[in-house]
Amino acid sequence: MFITFEGIEGSGKSTQAKLLHEWFLDAGYEVVLTREPGGTPAAEELREFILSEREENFPEMAELMLYMAARSFHVQNLIKPALASGAIVISDRFSDATLAYQGYGRELPIEEIEHLNQLATGGLSPDITFLIDIPVEIGFSRIKRRKQDRIEKENFEFHEKVRKGYLEIAKRYPERIVIIDGRKRTVEIFSEIHQIVERRLKNGI
Amino acid sequence: MFITFEGIEGSGKSTQAKLLHEWFLDAGYEVVLTREPGGTPAAEELREFILSEREENFPEMAELMLYMAARSFHVQNLIKPALASGAIVISDRFSDATLAYQGYGRELPIEEIEHLNQLATGGLSPDITFLIDIPVEIGFSRIKRRKQDRIEKENFEFHEKVRKGYLEIAKRYPERIVIIDGRKRTVEIFSEIHQIVERRLKNGI
Repeated sequence: MFITFEGIEGSGKSTQAKLLHEWFLDAGYEVVLTREPGGTPAAEELREFILSEREENFPEMAELMLYMAARSFHVQNLIKPALASGAIVISDRFSDATLAYQGYGRELPIEEIEHLNQLATGGLSPDITFLIDIPVEIGFSRIKRRKQDRIEKENFEFHEKVRKGYLEIAKRYPERIVIIDGRKRTVEIFSEIHQIVERRLKNGI
Repeated sequence: MFITFEGIEGSGKSTQAKLLHEWFLDAGYEVVLTREPGGTPAAEELREFILSEREENFPEMAELMLYMAARSFHVQNLIKPALASGAIVISDRFSDATLAYQGYGRELPIEEIEHLNQLATGGLSPDITFLIDIPVEIGFSRIKRRKQDRIEKENFEFHEKVRKGYLEIAKRYPERIVIIDGRKRTVEIFSEIHQIVERRLKNGI
């Protein structure tokens, strides 16, 4: 079972990914918690490269290709082997994030990104994706205490396009993507998520 | 004027690129000598990443995407601005190298790579490309004294496919790509190259 969490900065997705990971551990499952960009030593190096500020202009196409390269390392060297060994894999962000940020946010062509995602993942898609949706104002107010990376520093309008993009993507994959209201309290959200996961586990996905 | 040099390891292309650069300098031209992967600080960082050995498996698709990311930095931040300012740009390798190494060498789909090259370069193509062709045995015997990188360490058969690939590419772009016999002496090769370049300069490309 391959589960991904998506959402804008400050949505609480990383917290929920961690809670679900702990819940699986407590229940005795073999489970791997990972993230994108990153997840393997090479992909984490690329994460550092992608997210850090540099003097040189960062072309949008270079950014897109780097996310894909990191995803390829992640899928080939961590996610696929873990799934093959029978483990549950939880990833804090995956392919949908590139559609939302580079496609809807940066306005690079969506079909191009879907095609590159296909190349980078070899067709691997999550079994279930939790999209933690919150208004950008709330996300922003939550992250302003954190040190922000190159992508987080983008303006309000950019993150608004990303949020709308995520909701569009969810409409296109209603079987896979569950939209969760991220304004609720952490425990309430987690209770919704683990109920859905338990139901899927019972039904054999 | 944008000039590229291509060829397998040990073909002598880097030597020829340097000689042509010096010749332009002596003749009073504004000229930039650069290389791929690399050419800007970000792209050189990616070069280091691509060519260094690592413990983790290096997926072919990740390698391909990284070459494209480096190319995007190179084109946007160095080649296009230099050409726009009226300089001549000489690059030791460019898009054809990805077709030859990842397309013919690793057998990734050629059309896919041409499409990605298009995305990474924004359609920029060299005005003239010198393909320095030599048999793999000779190339190998020349580089065996050097410390070899991840790609150079590939076996004979791989480099044979790359050489044949380059010759295929040259057939498809006969207007742009000039095949030079790399078995000749350095000065003879250079004399051929600079005669061709001078003729093109006179004819206004």
